[in-house]
Amino acid sequence: MIVLMEPTATEGQIADVVERLIAAGVSMQRLDGDRVTIAATGGNTAAAGDSGVDGMAGVAAVIAGSGGTPMVTARESPGNGGVATLATGPAARPERGFQVRGRWIGGTGLFFAAGPCSVEDPETMAAIAAEVAAAGGTALRAGAYKPRSSPYSFQGMGEAGLATARSAADAHGLLLVSEVLDATQIPIATRYVDILQVGARNMYNTSLLRELGRSRRPVLLKRGLAATIDEWLSAAEYIVSAGNPRVILCERGIRTFETATRNTLDLNAVPVVRERTHLPILVDPSHGTGLRTYVRPMARAAIACGADGLLIEVHTDPDRALSDAAQTIDPLTLRQVIRDAEAIRAAGEVDDAYSRATIG
Amino acid sequence: MIVLMEPTATEGQIADVVERLIAAGVSMQRLDGDRVTIAATGGNTAAAGDSGVDGMAGVAAVIAGSGGTPMVTARESPGNGGVATLATGPAARPERGFQVRGRWIGGTGLFFAAGPCSVEDPETMAAIAAEVAAAGGTALRAGAYKPRSSPYSFQGMGEAGLATARSAADAHGLLLVSEVLDATQIPIATRYVDILQVGARNMYNTSLLRELGRSRRPVLLKRGLAATIDEWLSAAEYIVSAGNPRVILCERGIRTFETATRNTLDLNAVPVVRERTHLPILVDPSHGTGLRTYVRPMARAAIACGADGLLIEVHTDPDRALSDAAQTIDPLTLRQVIRDAEAIRAAGEVDDAYSRATIG
Amino acid sequence: MIVLMEPTATEGQIADVVERLIAAGVSMQRLDGDRVTIAATGGNTAAAGDSGVDGMAGVAAVIAGSGGTPMVTARESPGNGGVATLATGPAARPERGFQVRGRWIGGTGLFFAAGPCSVEDPETMAAIAAEVAAAGGTALRAGAYKPRSSPYSFQGMGEAGLATARSAADAHGLLLVSEVLDATQIPIATRYVDILQVGARNMYNTSLLRELGRSRRPVLLKRGLAATIDEWLSAAEYIVSAGNPRVILCERGIRTFETATRNTLDLNAVPVVRERTHLPILVDPSHGTGLRTYVRPMARAAIACGADGLLIEVHTDPDRALSDAAQTIDPLTLRQVIRDAEAIRAAGEVDDAYSRATIG
Amino acid sequence: MIVLMEPTATEGQIADVVERLIAAGVSMQRLDGDRVTIAATGGNTAAAGDSGVDGMAGVAAVIAGSGGTPMVTARESPGNGGVATLATGPAARPERGFQVRGRWIGGTGLFFAAGPCSVEDPETMAAIAAEVAAAGGTALRAGAYKPRSSPYSFQGMGEAGLATARSAADAHGLLLVSEVLDATQIPIATRYVDILQVGARNMYNTSLLRELGRSRRPVLLKRGLAATIDEWLSAAEYIVSAGNPRVILCERGIRTFETATRNTLDLNAVPVVRERTHLPILVDPSHGTGLRTYVRPMARAAIACGADGLLIEVHTDPDRALSDAAQTIDPLTLRQVIRDAEAIRAAGEVDDAYSRATIG
Repeated sequence: MIVLMEPTATEGQIADVVERLIAAGVSMQRLDGDRVTIAATGGNTAAAGDSGVDGMAGVAAVIAGSGGTPMVTARESPGNGGVATLATGPAARPERGFQVRGRWIGGTGLFFAAGPCSVEDPETMAAIAAEVAAAGGTALRAGAYKPRSSPYSFQGMGEAGLATARSAADAHGLLLVSEVLDATQIPIATRYVDILQVGARNMYNTSLLRELGRSRRPVLLKRGLAATIDEWLSAAEYIVSAGNPRVILCERGIRTFETATRNTLDLNAVPVVRERTHLPILVDPSHGTGLRTYVRPMARAAIACGADGLLIEVHTDPDRALSDAAQTIDPLTLRQVIRDAEAIRAAGEVDDAYSRATIG
Repeated sequence: MIVLMEPTATEGQIADVVERLIAAGVSMQRLDGDRVTIAATGGNTAAAGDSGVDGMAGVAAVIAGSGGTPMVTARESPGNGGVATLATGPAARPERGFQVRGRWIGGTGLFFAAGPCSVEDPETMAAIAAEVAAAGGTALRAGAYKPRSSPYSFQGMGEAGLATARSAADAHGLLLVSEVLDATQIPIATRYVDILQVGARNMYNTSLLRELGRSRRPVLLKRGLAATIDEWLSAAEYIVSAGNPRVILCERGIRTFETATRNTLDLNAVPVVRERTHLPILVDPSHGTGLRTYVRPMARAAIACGADGLLIEVHTDPDRALSDAAQTIDPLTLRQVIRDAEAIRAAGEVDDAYSRATIG
Repeated sequence: MIVLMEPTATEGQIADVVERLIAAGVSMQRLDGDRVTIAATGGNTAAAGDSGVDGMAGVAAVIAGSGGTPMVTARESPGNGGVATLATGPAARPERGFQVRGRWIGGTGLFFAAGPCSVEDPETMAAIAAEVAAAGGTALRAGAYKPRSSPYSFQGMGEAGLATARSAADAHGLLLVSEVLDATQIPIATRYVDILQVGARNMYNTSLLRELGRSRRPVLLKRGLAATIDEWLSAAEYIVSAGNPRVILCERGIRTFETATRNTLDLNAVPVVRERTHLPILVDPSHGTGLRTYVRPMARAAIACGADGLLIEVHTDPDRALSDAAQTIDPLTLRQVIRDAEAIRAAGEVDDAYSRATIG
Repeated sequence: MIVLMEPTATEGQIADVVERLIAAGVSMQRLDGDRVTIAATGGNTAAAGDSGVDGMAGVAAVIAGSGGTPMVTARESPGNGGVATLATGPAARPERGFQVRGRWIGGTGLFFAAGPCSVEDPETMAAIAAEVAAAGGTALRAGAYKPRSSPYSFQGMGEAGLATARSAADAHGLLLVSEVLDATQIPIATRYVDILQVGARNMYNTSLLRELGRSRRPVLLKRGLAATIDEWLSAAEYIVSAGNPRVILCERGIRTFETATRNTLDLNAVPVVRERTHLPILVDPSHGTGLRTYVRPMARAAIACGADGLLIEVHTDPDRALSDAAQTIDPLTLRQVIRDAEAIRAAGEVDDAYSRATIG
């Protein structure tokens, strides 16, 4: 259970609320941001719900949420502004999704982020961005800081790469998504990037998650290689509970015994996530399969089961991509992928299981 | 590489072919059925392909095929009838799929098998069959022999169950799919059933597979809990190489660390299988998720990435199903599932990767 | 809970016991063998335990057992002969293990079964058997029926192979272990073999398990590739509940994402199994690693955590073994393995967690 | 292949070596530390080995090493000081292991690190340290920075906890092992801790690994939840290639489908790691099983297959441990574990597969 205080709430009002919750027998965590939030995570939350906190002075909203991830599974209480509302403004779809610089993610339209695995030279970046925009993409994705298995592999272009990617994105009206590997890169990346990506190998990096929670920039959080969906939502809770409600989940395949594909894309995760949280979910069929032949059919499947969009590796000359060439598609295939996705979405939207689910 | 002899080929002609292949340096296996088939699986198959066997007396066709599964990965050689053609007749789509009592599977239309996990009483079976037919289903599925983890669990109704299911299917013009657990059940089941199912727990049961290869009845082969796609195709090769070309593959989820769903539905397997073999592939979103809420979105995804149809657990009163109640949907949801599937298929068919793939 | 009737119990006495258990509210399964056994698997077994069945006429013993596998988790009640006792005779260690033709398995000594993956020619088999005996082995293992992924791979020598292996075993005073793939092979194999093996790929083959339960021959039951320990014990329950109490479990590695070894040897399973059941457990480090370099250290580890012995692939010329050459060790290494195992066992036996565990 | 330059090598000598290697067609990475090291990781390293670099002015040693992890798989070339030698001094066992404040790890003796999951109050820490020392332990382990799934769980005591643990360790002559979660904690932790631990959830955190490579403090690197052994060695290479040769590997269980234990302890990894690298390896049977009943047998198994020691959770009152209570043993069991380990090691040491292996 989450208690959102008014931005104008006084310390005295906060103390009163805490006292009432103590009397109801719950554990609490106070989170300070624009406003104070109190997360009640243990004990008798049912009693706390009945304790009348809802009507106390300085309280903006009381939000139900389940288990160890109250904020990412929170739904607004009737008549109050909920967490999602905070993120998206009062008028628009309160249940799921939010906006990033005027583009909806998790709303009725689809969100497509595409680009090379690693930032390349300015000419190549410009050419790729032009193709992404022409295909109907929403954002350019390109890595400037690369998490590599080997210390001897190319580690990315750093800030110079971010500047190159930003120029290419701006020239074609695209948002920019790029990965950060540690907290020291956040202030630099924030100068260039619209959505900060957390890679699969950093999903458990709680120091990084907490720092991203202090940022105002939306975060794209990839699922860990062997992370359960519960752990993934807990990672999102680290970010949201630290004050940043705009987290985008991204399924990118898990590690199993199967070797015909690089990873096993767990599309079951899409309806499970939609049932449990209001956060939007993208699918990355490039890492999820590891082979370009399978990107298009799996992109179709992702949209069909309810993904809010796709994260895709594309290059004007896929075989010459600086990394992940085997899973990188060409611009023509990207157009087909986006056209397919729109056609499948038009064939009927998946019910919003989240809004139907009963959450205690 | 596969050499199909004419049904009228003499032993002398067969011996000549064998001699030519020996000279080309390959290993061989002779398979006797309506006609003799010679599978060349090792050595220098390229040389064998160039050896002129194609034009020898008594040879009906020479079919390229890859690795250890030449027959399930075989494609017809130009100007000859291939394996698929043998199964389906000369006129229709030679590349993929075949007919079962006049219904195409793997062709342009979709194939829906639905019904209860276990056969129930005649009234319930009749009611369920009526609903399956009304929803647009192709076949009734119902288990009379059940593979249960515990020896104390309900083991199915046996032959009486098959008779009940057959009556229900006939009354509504449906095909009947049912599982066999060992070779002794094949003659009994063949009296009632149109498609003999091999369950996930029996995928490696080579004695059963070989016996099913001697049957004329099509076989629905589920993927094993931890079977690689290669092993699954090898299991199909057991059946096809023993003389039965009509094998239907069925992805039903693999075992991973994730516990939010009963299994992890590996939809990557759909395009991988379509690339490697002409055999049709169904998806079972009931076992693939284990929870009825997720059946509809995952059925959509399965069709979107190229599945030829679905295998679904449905019951007129899901909570009272004799087994697998948690993953069983109701008739209304089945209608939505089939309507969704048709709409997604209409939104554009997946390219037939198999027909484009280069197979050595 | 298991009720063992006296061999002399009358049908009237059996009916009285059943009535008493019905009154106590449990589900029952009657198993007919040398004596009648009644397995109470559901409902209020605590009430059943208090119902006084223990003292009724014709009742030989009442044995506690947990969950869905009452017989393999059964322990004898004080003052009565338990399931294990039935198998092993009244005098010796009642808690764990049993004898096979006079050799203990699961007792204080270790049990070593070694030999080639597949039966080879008589000279090779004789040479290998001589080495196994000289190294201190208890049994010869050799496959005559081989479960192969590909239908084109060598499928074993069948009955001729069994005869060859039997002669080799007899000449050196060894027991013989060999695999059966389906029920039709049981009568043939029983003529030659002391312990019938169920391979990992057949662990879920309930038809085969049930038939083996009707045999008097001990069964070596390998764990399935992706079987949980619970499922493995349920497979053992199929055999024991059908009347054959002498089941030997064998851990042989499970399937995971790791590719440095062929399988991941799950030695955790050894103490888990020892805690839950009186059945003995062997470990197969040959399949568990897939590479001969790792067989010796993992054999050491297996004994150190409480395995009752080892199943090992050995050949006088490992590189020429007909199958599984990469994981086959030579006779010198076998001597080191057995010497290591005895030294580690002498360094202190693992506590018998099973006899300490509290089972409801 | 690694070329170690003399500490006195001039830039001109370095340039000559680089030129020779370029001529031999390899890729290179220059690593600057006390001395310059040149890692040649791609191309024709055989030609490079034959290129005569070994005898060039300023070259201290040329060390063979395999694939993408030349430094952790490096072995000294005959007659020169190798990487391991650099770490351990000229006199002692050059092949494996090194010293930490005078205590060998990876040598002939065993290394035992034990203590509570989280630092507790000073009295409890003192009592636990006394027990660890009395049992024969080498190091106290206790977490002050805790990586928790939930942001609402106890996150550890931070620097105050480190000070408490240091005092307890010093009072009983123990080394101190403690985890760091990000680079900012390294300078603080270095004031108190002898061995800096990287947890399983941070194994892929290359920013952290690189910073630890700049430290002089030994690093205990746990295997990631779903990390292959190759990836784990690559993580070690990040640390070693950045200048810190003293890395201790620690197997702690991987994530699989089995739920009877918290993780699946992959003891196969012990001989695999011993074959591939000179780095010492510990095993953590506490996390590897998740249940205290299984800690003792699995600790025995770990030593039996060649582990250099153990990392164990122990508490004077296990049920009251602040975290991981279910897998925490009591002091009496710790004594048994260490006594068992010494007895098993005395029963015969595993051959050093590493020193026998042929590495290209």
